[in-house]
Amino acid sequence: MSKNITGGICAPQGFKAAGVKAGIKKSGKEDVSIIYSEVPAAVAAMFTTNAMAAAPVIVSRQAVQNGTIQAVAVNSGCANASTGEQGLIDAKTMAEVAATALGIAKDEVIVASTGIIGVNLPMDKVTAGIKKAAGELSKDGYAKALKGIMTTDTFEKECAYEFELNGKAVRIAGIAKGAGMIHPNMATMLCFITTDAAISPAVLKEALNEAVNLSFHMITVDGDTSTNDMISVLANGKAGNKLIDAKASSDYQKFVAMLKQVCIHLAKQVVQDGEGATKFLEITVRGATDFADAKVVAMAVAKSPLVKTAFFGQDPNWGRILCAVGYSGAKVDQTNTTLALGGITIVKGGVDSKPDIHALNKVMGEREIKVEIELGQGTAEATVWTCDFSYEYVKINADYST
Amino acid sequence: MSKNITGGICAPQGFKAAGVKAGIKKSGKEDVSIIYSEVPAAVAAMFTTNAMAAAPVIVSRQAVQNGTIQAVAVNSGCANASTGEQGLIDAKTMAEVAATALGIAKDEVIVASTGIIGVNLPMDKVTAGIKKAAGELSKDGYAKALKGIMTTDTFEKECAYEFELNGKAVRIAGIAKGAGMIHPNMATMLCFITTDAAISPAVLKEALNEAVNLSFHMITVDGDTSTNDMISVLANGKAGNKLIDAKASSDYQKFVAMLKQVCIHLAKQVVQDGEGATKFLEITVRGATDFADAKVVAMAVAKSPLVKTAFFGQDPNWGRILCAVGYSGAKVDQTNTTLALGGITIVKGGVDSKPDIHALNKVMGEREIKVEIELGQGTAEATVWTCDFSYEYVKINADYST
Repeated sequence: MSKNITGGICAPQGFKAAGVKAGIKKSGKEDVSIIYSEVPAAVAAMFTTNAMAAAPVIVSRQAVQNGTIQAVAVNSGCANASTGEQGLIDAKTMAEVAATALGIAKDEVIVASTGIIGVNLPMDKVTAGIKKAAGELSKDGYAKALKGIMTTDTFEKECAYEFELNGKAVRIAGIAKGAGMIHPNMATMLCFITTDAAISPAVLKEALNEAVNLSFHMITVDGDTSTNDMISVLANGKAGNKLIDAKASSDYQKFVAMLKQVCIHLAKQVVQDGEGATKFLEITVRGATDFADAKVVAMAVAKSPLVKTAFFGQDPNWGRILCAVGYSGAKVDQTNTTLALGGITIVKGGVDSKPDIHALNKVMGEREIKVEIELGQGTAEATVWTCDFSYEYVKINADYST
Repeated sequence: MSKNITGGICAPQGFKAAGVKAGIKKSGKEDVSIIYSEVPAAVAAMFTTNAMAAAPVIVSRQAVQNGTIQAVAVNSGCANASTGEQGLIDAKTMAEVAATALGIAKDEVIVASTGIIGVNLPMDKVTAGIKKAAGELSKDGYAKALKGIMTTDTFEKECAYEFELNGKAVRIAGIAKGAGMIHPNMATMLCFITTDAAISPAVLKEALNEAVNLSFHMITVDGDTSTNDMISVLANGKAGNKLIDAKASSDYQKFVAMLKQVCIHLAKQVVQDGEGATKFLEITVRGATDFADAKVVAMAVAKSPLVKTAFFGQDPNWGRILCAVGYSGAKVDQTNTTLALGGITIVKGGVDSKPDIHALNKVMGEREIKVEIELGQGTAEATVWTCDFSYEYVKINADYST
């Protein structure tokens, strides 16, 4: 049982935030944010698997090793990726400037950047922005902090919930930025989660893994994985619940369920804001041999440009979906394959089941469409979320850096 | 040493062809073709690896087992894929009707189909078309036969060469259809090659493998692999050269070099006609640990929608290229990575090498662009061909079946 609450990432006790206009973005909007916990918080984080990992990823990977941190400093407008030795120096400087301004140790700060690749950070602006943000931290700062991490996002992605652990009210909240380049394994995506739950770093890490495997690792916009992605969760213990220090407990189960709820909520919002998206697709594969096979089929369908453009065209071109199922590499058999769109079965035993065209056209015209594939091979299932491919996607990405 | 010749797939001795309008395509254009050898020809073929393989693929896979065939019967406008039991019956009927009309055994015919998935063949039209085509076979039929295999192709893809093997003139020629869904492992692509070389079926198979691995397996348009792809080569021995029956011979080397030339020519044309393409990209990766790594990097770059839209926008957004190199999974190191576009080095040691912007803009404005990536890890290299992603791609694929 949980309820929605207000206050964003500052809703959990002991967290403050700020977002300021530092002049990095051409738009002049907020581009430096700080999220701060009044006390050291247990931290768990996951980073991009891209071999060209950006400097802030390299620096933050190191910073989370201790298991606790107290602040996150983020800039948008410049990714500090493919920036060589200078990029590493700049990322470390970001952490140091934030630590000094906040009066904490420099290894208590993680840093993140998002924006264009291959350009060095304008460090005078970044430094001034971090100092300013540190001076403006407040319980109301969550909205501006969220603005400060956005790039091509067209709407704000956040959620905050309250639930109970052994009689104590516990809060958990998150913000995310996404839009293009969204793919499993943490593609250009930043997500920061705060909670006042008391949980040990080691168990928090397991919980984050579980939650991400069923949320951020199950979405795809265009199949590209970026150099800068990061998801972190800070747990400062201010709720006063009994410390969760083992997986074998009902408190852990309750906590991980809430963390999953936050991650799925934000992951779906990231897809809904996929660059140029006009359709939100939920693709569920059932009857697979195992979860890996179910996921590989769902992802093959979700990533196919031909499937994605067909949905943009509101065209129930199911042959393209079956084609993607066929090349996915999973164990499938066309004579056992069933496909439904919006609850209407359109393929049975691998062939056209002659659905009602009027009803089907109505489904294709909707903004959100459920795609259900039954493989008839076993009992495993997986759900993946994606969006369509539109003219607008091409336009946004053809013009981005110029 | 080889020279271009006229006569298309009928240029090799002993081959005739025809293409007729059978009324399968809505456009009313040629949609049934036959390619015929006066004598049984050695055959080698490769088929889609898609688990949803179309009925003609299943039937033809069987037919090539003998090692010789005498005719190919093809229709466009309907793929006969995802058509269940009836689809298999129809594909077999196509072969039988062609065999009867040509006065040969039914296992001497391979069949192929291309077009929309999930719809049964209009067998009355297909049967009448095959009979008509069989009656119109001629040395001049190559041009109409080529038209009969096309779908969304905007230009005809063919080539014909003559070369010498131990004093005998040998001819080799090919036609292909492509456009969308082009990806390694034989994506929606039909290719028929004829030659009057004398070569054993077993050795012909090896030669085709070698040639396809460096041509059709090195192209990608949108990453989708289709249900219907097929490439076949018929060698009828009419040139009278000494039979090539072993790989360890200079004749084999000469033959495979010519087969490769035909395959690369047609594969590049398929990419140049990628749906909505405005740019032709040749991506060469050097300095890889091995060929597999070089190919995986080149393919990751070639398949990235973000890279493809950037080229459409004439935007030298090299960060996206490096990002794709990074997530390819190959062994790479950003500090050793070099990138050049059109011969202009723009990244050195993983960072911006500040190229001349005027010269770079000129390169980006060209129709054909060479992308060269040096990994600094070893000595292996690979070249992949692809095209950009345009508004037109989305338009063509959003509207295809409606």
